[in-house]
Parts: sequence; structure tokens; C-alpha cells
Amino acid sequence: MNFTIRPAVKADCKDIWRLIRELAIHEKVANKVVLSYEEFEQDGFGKKPLFESLVAEVPEENKSKEGFTVVGVALYYYTYCTWNGRAVFLEDLYVMPGFRGFGIGKSLLSTLAKVVLEKSCKLMEVNVMAENSQSRAFYTAAGAWDVTVMDNWHTLCFDGKSLHKLANKDPES
Amino acid sequence: MNFTIRPAVKADCKDIWRLIRELAIHEKVANKVVLSYEEFEQDGFGKKPLFESLVAEVPEENKSKEGFTVVGVALYYYTYCTWNGRAVFLEDLYVMPGFRGFGIGKSLLSTLAKVVLEKSCKLMEVNVMAENSQSRAFYTAAGAWDVTVMDNWHTLCFDGKSLHKLANKDPES
Repeated sequence: MNFTIRPAVKADCKDIWRLIRELAIHEKVANKVVLSYEEFEQDGFGKKPLFESLVAEVPEENKSKEGFTVVGVALYYYTYCTWNGRAVFLEDLYVMPGFRGFGIGKSLLSTLAKVVLEKSCKLMEVNVMAENSQSRAFYTAAGAWDVTVMDNWHTLCFDGKSLHKLANKDPES
Repeated sequence: MNFTIRPAVKADCKDIWRLIRELAIHEKVANKVVLSYEEFEQDGFGKKPLFESLVAEVPEENKSKEGFTVVGVALYYYTYCTWNGRAVFLEDLYVMPGFRGFGIGKSLLSTLAKVVLEKSCKLMEVNVMAENSQSRAFYTAAGAWDVTVMDNWHTLCFDGKSLHKLANKDPES
């Protein structure tokens, strides 16, 4: 199947949002998505974009049964490592089920690697659920190593409630 | 001990660099720091800063035996979560050994929580080595939960070599 990978523009925002929601449903975490479309569009395509995306597009004649031609996305943002410098975090990589097996995911990843290197970034990281053996195999085959297993790093998270408590803004704290 | 927490300015860069290197030595990973000071200064205090910092400063009369008044740092950058929106990653939090036990680390973290909320961020994440039980206890007591353990997410990493291979820029690949 023919497809092209290109940087996303504002006109792609609705498609990216659709793909991200599909991914959340696929990961059975749709209930955790609290972001609104308006916030997402502003955050990604406003004056100071907080993330960038690559999209995979198929020709009109290969569109999905729902009529979509944007069938995959890699959404990422820039991070910083005080050991290595500039880096990239791949937040979401998703290809619609009907378009898998044609190398679209690999091509999104490979194009992103080019972007990462062009931006003089030294590392790219991605989070995967441990039980998602398919994704882990995909990234490992592409050359990634598991920091959690190899270096035994854990990620700790403060959510809104604990942040408020920490900032002493919660009168009940 | 009196101390103040304030946002870092360019004049603090050398102190921040010193503290970050101390932390790397403390974590026995000094050999992994490949970044140069010049890159670090440009990345943090150039036209488009890739990270921000809060510093902890003590009065001149309480300076360290080496003569330093900047004795702690919290270095962070903005990230993005497609479930929750804007977020912050705390890359490094460090207080010089002689200045521990006065609440400086807690105060850096608490001030950062205020910044995070003011910037309308919904989450703050931090990585800790699993065997660093002191740090894990510090963050957990402050309200963080362990995403690696609770949600079983793993972080995979592509380094320069695998990125080049992936981008097909390595003629040997």
C-alpha cells in the first residue's frame, strides 16, 4: 500500500485527536482521557506548540471505510537529559488496525528518528505497558532497550490532588 | 537555616552545572555525563530554553566551606500527556550534603508544585533509581505514586547508535 509520512499541520488536528482516542480505547484507558479537543488543538497548534506530530496518509483510493486518509500518527515532544542534552519523548504511536502490516508504524518511527537526529537530539524514549508484548517487540527490534529493566529506574507521578497538597493550595491539607 | 527558593537566571548556570555534576557523582553515573558546559548553558539559557530551574540559596554567612551560596536545585522541563495535557518532568532535584535536613529539598519540590499548577499542568513526573529507597520515600511521602509498579509501564530508550540505524543514516546498517 502506498503511503506518505509528513509533519502534521493544524488541518490534521481532528485526525490526530481521532487516532489518539482510538489508541486509548485500544489500550482500555479511554476513561483516563480528560483532555478536551479544544485544549488539545490549542496545545499542539497554538503559538507555542507543546508537541509535534508526524502523520501517515494514504491516497484517496485507499481511504478507510469511514473515509479517513490519515491512518497513523507519531506524536512527540522535546525533553532534556542533563547527562546527554536534547532528547525526544514519543508520546503516542498508532496505526489504524486496517492499515497494519504495510510498514507504516516502522516508517513513522524511522522518519521520527531522522527528525530527532536533525534536531541534534541524543536520545528518544517511549513508554509501553509491560504486558503489551507486541509493542515491546516492535521497539526492541528497532533498537530500543528497556531502561526500566536494565537500569531499574522507576517513574513516580504527582497528580493534581497531590500537587495541590504539595503546593499548600488545598485548604484541607 | 535560612534559605530562599527562586527561579534560576543565567548567572546561576555554573552553580546548577556544579550541582548536577555532584548529583551524577553521588549516583555513581558521572561517566554517563557527555554533555559539555557550553551546550548546557546554551540549552538552558539561550533564546529557546529547553529546561527551567529553581535554586535554593543560603545567606553569605551560611555559605558552604567551598564558598557556595547556591546549595540546591530542581531542574525541570515541560512535557505533554495526550490523556491529561500539559505536564512537567522533574529531571534533577539535588541538595548539597551539608545542607540537608533543613527542608530545602521539600521546599524546592513544594515551590515547583506551585509553578506546575500556575502553568496549568496536570501532572509532574520524576524518575528514581529503584534502589534509591531514600528518594523514593521522599517523593512518596510528598504524595507521588510509582507508575512503574502500579501501572506496569516500562520506558524504552533509543540511543544515538540505534537512532542512526533506524534513520538509515548508518552506512553499516
